[in-house]
Amino acid sequence: MKVVRVRVEDDVRYGLADDSTITLISDEPFAAWEPDGTLPLATAHLLPPVTPTKVVCVGKNYRAHAAELDSEVPEEPVLFMKPATSVIGPAGEIVLPEQSKRVDYEAELAVVLGRRTHKVTPEEAKHHILGYMCANDVTARDLQTKDGQWTRAKSFDTFCPLGPWIETDVEDPGDLLVECYLNGKVKQSARTSEMTWHPWELVSFVSGIMTLLPGDVVLTGTPAGIGPMKRGDTVEVRIEGVGSLTNRVV
Amino acid sequence: MKVVRVRVEDDVRYGLADDSTITLISDEPFAAWEPDGTLPLATAHLLPPVTPTKVVCVGKNYRAHAAELDSEVPEEPVLFMKPATSVIGPAGEIVLPEQSKRVDYEAELAVVLGRRTHKVTPEEAKHHILGYMCANDVTARDLQTKDGQWTRAKSFDTFCPLGPWIETDVEDPGDLLVECYLNGKVKQSARTSEMTWHPWELVSFVSGIMTLLPGDVVLTGTPAGIGPMKRGDTVEVRIEGVGSLTNRVV
Repeated sequence: MKVVRVRVEDDVRYGLADDSTITLISDEPFAAWEPDGTLPLATAHLLPPVTPTKVVCVGKNYRAHAAELDSEVPEEPVLFMKPATSVIGPAGEIVLPEQSKRVDYEAELAVVLGRRTHKVTPEEAKHHILGYMCANDVTARDLQTKDGQWTRAKSFDTFCPLGPWIETDVEDPGDLLVECYLNGKVKQSARTSEMTWHPWELVSFVSGIMTLLPGDVVLTGTPAGIGPMKRGDTVEVRIEGVGSLTNRVV
Repeated sequence: MKVVRVRVEDDVRYGLADDSTITLISDEPFAAWEPDGTLPLATAHLLPPVTPTKVVCVGKNYRAHAAELDSEVPEEPVLFMKPATSVIGPAGEIVLPEQSKRVDYEAELAVVLGRRTHKVTPEEAKHHILGYMCANDVTARDLQTKDGQWTRAKSFDTFCPLGPWIETDVEDPGDLLVECYLNGKVKQSARTSEMTWHPWELVSFVSGIMTLLPGDVVLTGTPAGIGPMKRGDTVEVRIEGVGSLTNRVV
């Protein structure tokens, strides 16, 4: 199933998308729901599929990306967070802030939690996950270097495109192709099998620190090939079996 | 005014406290409200005064604390975040996680936003602030050092005591005594006039990066004198003109 969040007149609704139609549902996808009307997909205004209370991210989960940062793969996952105010959906635009001279794309597989999740094993984590999305962990690279702490560089409004939907039919997220295209040219391309920590291991690790709530998001790191975007660019994150998320840079 | 959040039977309500009585209010303190019943303060179950969408914190805002970390005062504020799941109120207990061998108190003045706040000047910031609270930026010092990034060390459940209320009658937060007492002995004591950046400058700085929403919290850094807590300790953050927040460590 592809879970979408969509604007319907003045209302915000969840729905399930197929190739052409959205079936609206009566409640949040985390709750019990019933079908409640339909909408054509082509003209729908898709919102970010979730409104997370937190977006927890992991650094250097792909060996080749750690290498391009001249950095070792750490012993344990290194975490940082992006605020909910940085989240945009497939209809949103990435706004370059005046404080930075270099803003990079980072294609990532995003995990969406479906249940309250506290101290679970990787095997249990699997059953707490609602599904997967494409994510772009947009980063002001110069500020990341300057600050040492990554929060400012990664937290500007619009710096967390998510979507276009939550794909719930992913048997194992551990071997999917993750790609980033800038103006149609491939820039990042790796399989999630190259991750140091499998997405379920990451959810387990994070849940041992902070309780994850329904709709919370865990980003699983970016492959090698990071690089800058400029005004007018179009950036696409494409993940096998999940979907494709395209945003314009303004 | 002292704005409290309180459990009333199965309900959660906002109210205004004086020395002995809570006057319940009909809506959130960010909205228009009317008085709606009273409650004795002494027996009230006080909750965290806010449920923030984000808690944005600043490192090394007191020169003497930067020095005790063998660190320079940075050119610009260095930011990190604590998740909403780390927030507890005056009735909450700080739970020491098994992953850490050293968990420290950090007494801090907390700012609570009352309005949506985007790219404001320090002078404008003042008018976007609802009030001030005591905060304890609890930190797993060993994990902070190990990770480099501070997120894990500062994000465990219960690591962000806030309260006991939001004090709205603070003319200028730029010259208040901030103290931390561990089992009744003073451990930190400094005036906010020793901050490198005034709380209004911090709100202005953060608002230029991420939009702050009503109830969002900005922590303004801790003075020198940090140190560890152990099971059974009682830690109190006391701020002149704001209040006193005491939590037990378990």
